[in-house]
Amino acid sequence: VSAAKGGLDDIRGELRQPDELFATMVATRAANVLRPTGALARLDNIAAWLAGWQRTNRPRVERPIALIFAADHGVAHAGVSAYPPEITASMLEAFRSGVSSINVMASTIGARVEAVDVGVGAPTADLRVAPAMDAARFATAVRAGRAAVASTDADLVVIGEMGIGNTTAAAAVCAALCGGDSADWVGRGTGVDEAGLARKIDAVDDARKRIRRVTDPVEVLRHVGGLELAAMAGAIAEARSRGLPVLLDGYVTAAAALPLAMVNADALAHCMAGHRSAEPGHRRVLQHLGLEPLLDLDLRLGEGSGAMAAVPLLQMACRLVTDVPTFDEWLGREA
Amino acid sequence: VSAAKGGLDDIRGELRQPDELFATMVATRAANVLRPTGALARLDNIAAWLAGWQRTNRPRVERPIALIFAADHGVAHAGVSAYPPEITASMLEAFRSGVSSINVMASTIGARVEAVDVGVGAPTADLRVAPAMDAARFATAVRAGRAAVASTDADLVVIGEMGIGNTTAAAAVCAALCGGDSADWVGRGTGVDEAGLARKIDAVDDARKRIRRVTDPVEVLRHVGGLELAAMAGAIAEARSRGLPVLLDGYVTAAAALPLAMVNADALAHCMAGHRSAEPGHRRVLQHLGLEPLLDLDLRLGEGSGAMAAVPLLQMACRLVTDVPTFDEWLGREA
Repeated sequence: VSAAKGGLDDIRGELRQPDELFATMVATRAANVLRPTGALARLDNIAAWLAGWQRTNRPRVERPIALIFAADHGVAHAGVSAYPPEITASMLEAFRSGVSSINVMASTIGARVEAVDVGVGAPTADLRVAPAMDAARFATAVRAGRAAVASTDADLVVIGEMGIGNTTAAAAVCAALCGGDSADWVGRGTGVDEAGLARKIDAVDDARKRIRRVTDPVEVLRHVGGLELAAMAGAIAEARSRGLPVLLDGYVTAAAALPLAMVNADALAHCMAGHRSAEPGHRRVLQHLGLEPLLDLDLRLGEGSGAMAAVPLLQMACRLVTDVPTFDEWLGREA
Repeated sequence: VSAAKGGLDDIRGELRQPDELFATMVATRAANVLRPTGALARLDNIAAWLAGWQRTNRPRVERPIALIFAADHGVAHAGVSAYPPEITASMLEAFRSGVSSINVMASTIGARVEAVDVGVGAPTADLRVAPAMDAARFATAVRAGRAAVASTDADLVVIGEMGIGNTTAAAAVCAALCGGDSADWVGRGTGVDEAGLARKIDAVDDARKRIRRVTDPVEVLRHVGGLELAAMAGAIAEARSRGLPVLLDGYVTAAAALPLAMVNADALAHCMAGHRSAEPGHRRVLQHLGLEPLLDLDLRLGEGSGAMAAVPLLQMACRLVTDVPTFDEWLGREA
């Protein structure tokens, strides 16, 4: 993997594509199974999409894994969160102890959770006044994200995060790359009050002013993102290079994916949005990405939780094509 | 169960209520588990709702069952469906053989499916020109719905249906009870063409003219509904009398529930809407019922499929309250 642009250079080149033959096979079968054509179109399309990436006419989500990237943020000391920075480390421990919300959700459907520490207790610089990461640190985080995906045998990867202060970083990335008022990209995160919301907007404004001459989307991510955002970008890029389908979680995850899509409009073809969160910026960035979320339940936890809630839909979608007989199979059986 | 009003008279009386103590216990615990308060509010509310109806501080969806009521419709011969009436019987056989879409969805999450024949091959009268059911037939169907619920040991009941022509009956019930143009309540169902759509609208108009003096909502259901709609109304009423939570499927299911809510505004407190379907009338009737659906994926199969797709959210919601430690439990564990 190239170290240039922090190990994301492959996104600028030719990307691995799904096998359209398998996608078409599954779509064709879906149109002929024992139900009115198109009655479950949204699920049929998911099955065909999975078939293309998994390169099989029997797509499956039997080994889903949630990769939760955790890191701390210099800006967290600026009063932009309802919680103190130390919570990041506590939650990392909770993930590893198997007691957090994402662990419990995963266990109900037989999914695994892997928490990846890419900078807990070692915060980035304060994005208001300095690049959040230097090039080396950014590249290390990207490589950690790539490695987490490279070492899994999963058939679907849920990408999520934890990091006190990271909705501010997400807002800075999205505002810098998509434009508009900073206030449009800032929400209450875990529940910041009115004054905290104003501080978040100011922080994003400061960050944007600082990087107004930075044009490369990946450089924007390095300047105003965070270590877990860099790792998620790496994870998403690595999944693409391996043809592994990805389910994105919330606002911060989408913000990490956004620079890839700005570099190459096709970069997220292997990704679906698990849900649309309560953060107002998430709706906006999903529109920019052209991603239609599966769920819309006003969740705002992060940890991969919104995407994990959508995994059963993918599991069902696969079975709904492979396990329901076609009209011909059904009639043959009757004969 | 009273035979008056076809065995739905208990809805007119005092209804069984949830145990608010358990609902409050679960809501309180949800506010104190290891995540920002309200971050998963929609799921927490589901858990509290289940706790109230199940009368426990450990709500569970471990024995969900889909009850699929199937019947034929006299109006199906009027060219209102893309499929011939004989398909109802074929699908009933498919349900019982375990090969239909709802069976496959259920099997991926360990749910059961029971198909209940309340009039397959014995269609109702043509609702355009005569009462779909006489009082005795209506009462028999309601009782069959009640019996299906009474005989289950499920902890959640998914209510769904199958019946060629039944979106026309659903539209007639909704239009008669909610008002508005018939065209607003009529959709393409399983995929009827433009001419078929016009015939559906005409059929609903004819039915409404015929019953313009009928005011009792249950009588409207008897006049322009169908046997499976009557059975679903009975099933929903029986679930209420047993304090059993219900997940409603699509448009036809909502139409069957509507008369209960018109008789008693509180009658559906034990029901959630599993999804919002592609049928335009479904959105309208859910608004009338004040039900906010969990999923919105443009599904339009029926068979309980949209509600079954939402069951994992309920399963996760329970575990997210009972299995995630409170902050105190987590700190105590660390000490």
